[in-house]
Amino acid sequence: MGSNTFGKLFQITTFGESHGKGIGVVIDGCPSNITIDLSAIQAEVDFRRPGFSEHTTQRKEQDRLEILSGVFKGRSTGAPITLFIKNCDCDSSRYDKIKEVYRPSHANYTYLEKYGIYDHRGGGRASARETVARVAAGAIAKQIIAPVEIFAYIKQIGAIKAEDIDILSNQEQYREIRTNSQINCIDKKAEKKMLRLLKQIREEGDSVGGVIECVILSPPVGLGDPIYEKFEAMLASAMLSIPASKGFEIGDGFGVASMRGSEANDTFVVKEHQVSCLTNHSGGILGGITNGKPIIFRVAFKPTASIARLQKTVNINKEETTLDLDKKLDRHDPCVAIRAVSVIEAMAALVTADKLLYK
Amino acid sequence: MGSNTFGKLFQITTFGESHGKGIGVVIDGCPSNITIDLSAIQAEVDFRRPGFSEHTTQRKEQDRLEILSGVFKGRSTGAPITLFIKNCDCDSSRYDKIKEVYRPSHANYTYLEKYGIYDHRGGGRASARETVARVAAGAIAKQIIAPVEIFAYIKQIGAIKAEDIDILSNQEQYREIRTNSQINCIDKKAEKKMLRLLKQIREEGDSVGGVIECVILSPPVGLGDPIYEKFEAMLASAMLSIPASKGFEIGDGFGVASMRGSEANDTFVVKEHQVSCLTNHSGGILGGITNGKPIIFRVAFKPTASIARLQKTVNINKEETTLDLDKKLDRHDPCVAIRAVSVIEAMAALVTADKLLYK
Amino acid sequence: MGSNTFGKLFQITTFGESHGKGIGVVIDGCPSNITIDLSAIQAEVDFRRPGFSEHTTQRKEQDRLEILSGVFKGRSTGAPITLFIKNCDCDSSRYDKIKEVYRPSHANYTYLEKYGIYDHRGGGRASARETVARVAAGAIAKQIIAPVEIFAYIKQIGAIKAEDIDILSNQEQYREIRTNSQINCIDKKAEKKMLRLLKQIREEGDSVGGVIECVILSPPVGLGDPIYEKFEAMLASAMLSIPASKGFEIGDGFGVASMRGSEANDTFVVKEHQVSCLTNHSGGILGGITNGKPIIFRVAFKPTASIARLQKTVNINKEETTLDLDKKLDRHDPCVAIRAVSVIEAMAALVTADKLLYK
Amino acid sequence: MGSNTFGKLFQITTFGESHGKGIGVVIDGCPSNITIDLSAIQAEVDFRRPGFSEHTTQRKEQDRLEILSGVFKGRSTGAPITLFIKNCDCDSSRYDKIKEVYRPSHANYTYLEKYGIYDHRGGGRASARETVARVAAGAIAKQIIAPVEIFAYIKQIGAIKAEDIDILSNQEQYREIRTNSQINCIDKKAEKKMLRLLKQIREEGDSVGGVIECVILSPPVGLGDPIYEKFEAMLASAMLSIPASKGFEIGDGFGVASMRGSEANDTFVVKEHQVSCLTNHSGGILGGITNGKPIIFRVAFKPTASIARLQKTVNINKEETTLDLDKKLDRHDPCVAIRAVSVIEAMAALVTADKLLYK
Repeated sequence: MGSNTFGKLFQITTFGESHGKGIGVVIDGCPSNITIDLSAIQAEVDFRRPGFSEHTTQRKEQDRLEILSGVFKGRSTGAPITLFIKNCDCDSSRYDKIKEVYRPSHANYTYLEKYGIYDHRGGGRASARETVARVAAGAIAKQIIAPVEIFAYIKQIGAIKAEDIDILSNQEQYREIRTNSQINCIDKKAEKKMLRLLKQIREEGDSVGGVIECVILSPPVGLGDPIYEKFEAMLASAMLSIPASKGFEIGDGFGVASMRGSEANDTFVVKEHQVSCLTNHSGGILGGITNGKPIIFRVAFKPTASIARLQKTVNINKEETTLDLDKKLDRHDPCVAIRAVSVIEAMAALVTADKLLYK
Repeated sequence: MGSNTFGKLFQITTFGESHGKGIGVVIDGCPSNITIDLSAIQAEVDFRRPGFSEHTTQRKEQDRLEILSGVFKGRSTGAPITLFIKNCDCDSSRYDKIKEVYRPSHANYTYLEKYGIYDHRGGGRASARETVARVAAGAIAKQIIAPVEIFAYIKQIGAIKAEDIDILSNQEQYREIRTNSQINCIDKKAEKKMLRLLKQIREEGDSVGGVIECVILSPPVGLGDPIYEKFEAMLASAMLSIPASKGFEIGDGFGVASMRGSEANDTFVVKEHQVSCLTNHSGGILGGITNGKPIIFRVAFKPTASIARLQKTVNINKEETTLDLDKKLDRHDPCVAIRAVSVIEAMAALVTADKLLYK
Repeated sequence: MGSNTFGKLFQITTFGESHGKGIGVVIDGCPSNITIDLSAIQAEVDFRRPGFSEHTTQRKEQDRLEILSGVFKGRSTGAPITLFIKNCDCDSSRYDKIKEVYRPSHANYTYLEKYGIYDHRGGGRASARETVARVAAGAIAKQIIAPVEIFAYIKQIGAIKAEDIDILSNQEQYREIRTNSQINCIDKKAEKKMLRLLKQIREEGDSVGGVIECVILSPPVGLGDPIYEKFEAMLASAMLSIPASKGFEIGDGFGVASMRGSEANDTFVVKEHQVSCLTNHSGGILGGITNGKPIIFRVAFKPTASIARLQKTVNINKEETTLDLDKKLDRHDPCVAIRAVSVIEAMAALVTADKLLYK
Repeated sequence: MGSNTFGKLFQITTFGESHGKGIGVVIDGCPSNITIDLSAIQAEVDFRRPGFSEHTTQRKEQDRLEILSGVFKGRSTGAPITLFIKNCDCDSSRYDKIKEVYRPSHANYTYLEKYGIYDHRGGGRASARETVARVAAGAIAKQIIAPVEIFAYIKQIGAIKAEDIDILSNQEQYREIRTNSQINCIDKKAEKKMLRLLKQIREEGDSVGGVIECVILSPPVGLGDPIYEKFEAMLASAMLSIPASKGFEIGDGFGVASMRGSEANDTFVVKEHQVSCLTNHSGGILGGITNGKPIIFRVAFKPTASIARLQKTVNINKEETTLDLDKKLDRHDPCVAIRAVSVIEAMAALVTADKLLYK
């Protein structure tokens, strides 16, 4: 299986470069007779789109989605569904001056070493723009997994952490997050501080990291497989495949290290004639298989590597040089985590759809 | 590809249950003419073996490795290599009293829901005993990736954290860790505290979580693939497939969330006519591809779910009941992380071998 | 792996319908820095194109190839290469009258049963038009496997069989076949009879079957794998995946059934200091692995199912009805085998490229 | 996916050599709670066993089947099922004299070229003995696909062809074939001639080819996938992976080449309120998907390559030499096709089970 493919039964293959003709995805394995709601897919893509809020990059793309195959009279036919998004705003000349410079914490050094060639324009295949294809495919996955719902939101930006707000008793609040928060943060007090920090960071030409939390709500019992395809292993692989992600944890995550078994074990109880757990330290998965509780995980993102500050570096001739991007002209997100919210939801939906189809 | 299979070019398929005939692994894709050093494989398996130190389970297994196929005159032939380890010490009667009880934070509930049948003896397929097959296969992977070396060690048990000791300037110390430390901890001061904690935990019939750090030393530049098979994504999936693991982070991991780009970026420099990085916040990977710096990651483990304390729970008839394991008779590890050290090394070796064969 | 994907290391995924937006292919695994010769690819696509000779369908398509991704400055970058061919000539109204009729020996009955929906326009995904994507991908595969060459040609149409003309001593004749023969037949005498037969068949509104032979010239020793991925098994799967194919044989094929071992064994000899075989009954493969001799195989094709003759059938309401296509208006090939020549070459190139990359 | 693996949802991985410890198979994907009938599996393995009739090799093996994993209280648990058959009768000394000789039409030349090492004892991995693992796995597949039944039988040995005997109206005759015919031939008159021929061939120390026909009876409509995983493509790949097979054809196969569309099309009719076809030229598959009619295919086998006649050949030092096997001491089948009957049934069952699980 090629390395641009994700999933086994609900399988996506993405293609395209940041400044090439466009970005696309082939979905192989979508059940037939599913209504393919183009506006719902477009809404997801728009939500991800840079320029959505002032805190993500200023790049103006329209990201108009086109269906190239697999849909007949508004429904899936069982044939591969191809979605394509043309690139519109592709002045690559800004990238000319840096095409021979290894950009700190960027992929151009490793790509050049691996492939001996690099499409430097806008980052080429290494650009986070590839994730628009994941979001489009994820939108279809979301339709398939309903009534299972997925919510991702900002948990931390820089050192500012959002409070835990229980999702089960505040579902409406979570459902409205996209319209109520510029940066997808549920905790209004934290959001304010975050916005202030982002403004400052942007002015400094710097960037900042963040953490996103995601909940898969109302999953059926029994998703995931015992050994190498544990549900959390699939999620971990999905999340670490997102550009700039550096960590993944499920349930109590790294926090369990300092816990005792007597604290961390989730006690089984009977609730409304169903087996359930009193607590959810495990994050909804036991032995790799969902237990019906909400699946909760977090993903850490590093600060955007492109910063508008003078940086020492090296060029392809192994000469020392500097890199000096322009705050206004060289568009970048101060915090990639914000835009990654929709990508995380999409990848979580893809994992869930894939495992659901096994049932 | 079945869910008991890991890897694509260096591919393993494991089988077997804790109290069945044994545990085995088929390795498909091992290059031919590799010397298969049975004693090296046995050493890895012994290192993992419960009973190795007083801090892991008391279960006495000999874990004698047998080669069932693929080796001729001590060398690999290109045919699948099968390793098998018979189960010796399998009195399953202790498990009879709990076979109808959902064990808190164990997999028997989800297995029963998913499959409608469960081999409860010793945890069956859900037992951590499956990992002995990974360790055996990983031992062959280690031979293939040499001179790349892999070191995993205890970084944290409970709230006790080990100091960072730079591996590049202390390689010998790391190479001797297995003989020098009962619990694979490099920081002697921390080790003492950990041992004290483990003793106490064991006496209380409780368990505790931990964090393991792992370094892949001297990797070549260019391993890993850009999109869904980023080196860190493969590692994440490998690590979260280990029983009881709850989190994975690479490089600065969750710590990057509170960093600025100007801090977190790794500056490129020229060192001995080679491109290198001054720092290694990224943990040796850029854009999913290794950059030649050591690959550093950490994995969090929850406390052992089996504790010798009275726990409330539910049985398969949905009746409330209690579970009361015996400290002496019901063998368990006070801290699963300790034994997971060899499993992490094995999984890291498998990922590295798989990606190396792509080159 | 989805069912629209072929190959493992040089992997293609095709998409698109006969009368949809177009037909496309994503190639994942093409080595980087390969010159992608668009005109060579276009030439292969043109060669396959209906309307190329009067003996294939009259449909007028331009089949202009477009590269959507993966190529930078004329060379492959290691990223997925996407080729797309827009559909131009898509008046689907002719298909309206048959959209509720099960067409004898067509796929619309089984598609409807399997998917509950069917894009009937031009056959949708079941149309042989999908093979244009294979031909485009195969053209790149041909560039990769050079100097290995692939020649397919008509061996039989109806009861007319072409003589065997040794390829090793007549290579130029084979290389010129595309320009020298309207129907890709090397035996000029047989070709004349075939053309006469095809004319008659067309006048009768009927169709006829055929056999194509294919030679992979100068393959290296060692391609293919011992058990389930024997080179001939991969070829067989590739060939039987071509619409209308009904049989595959390698070397002496079905003819070996009546041979003795003493006749059929290929005697090893030393030729120019190399091990070789005196004969090639086995068709260039021993134990699933190429032995360096030309790989020779044949594929049988059934007559085109669409004929311009009154046929009894059934409609989707399970009522008996008739199907009466018009000779002039309802375009069809009198013999699908002719157009399949380029598809067979493409599939053989894909198998060869995939196995070459394993080496 | 490794090359020793077959299938995707019902997936087998085989291992082992002819004269090694034994032959085994791991089945990953068997649904849980299936009764695993060991005696039924053993019966299939016995049926395949050499020595079953005087016309197959004289080798005396007991082929006692052992279950190493995946079965609990007689039922599958969802975990991988491993079956193992120890090798018992492994005097390899007879092979010593030929270990440096390239055996005509054998795999030792290509294995040595590919791997640089070869387990020459009994053919090692290249031995047809590997197929015992397929037969064992196929026996479980047969249990899963019931009530779908599979019948393979000898259609031709040398130039002697068996008459067509309609399976639908003679099902009992086909069900009793294993007990009624030494060589699995349904046509008693042809069988007599075949037995005479086999006796003569054996006396001459020669071997002969054959053709096997196979019917998959009562398949559901809708198995198989449109493009690269057409049901016939999967069958073709399965059949050409069997040692010594040289051709595959479905339905009218190579015979369609000389047919007209007006003859070869299968007319749709309504029969007992179901859509059916009057004829079955297509062999039960349309557009890659089963149409509910019996699936009929044939496989050609070359004569056994090991013959007890003096043959010229070459050794590993590229010197000309001769190979002279002993009729009595060097055991071989005069016609490999006979023993392949059970292997074909097994592979057909595996393909059917795999595609059934997709439904």
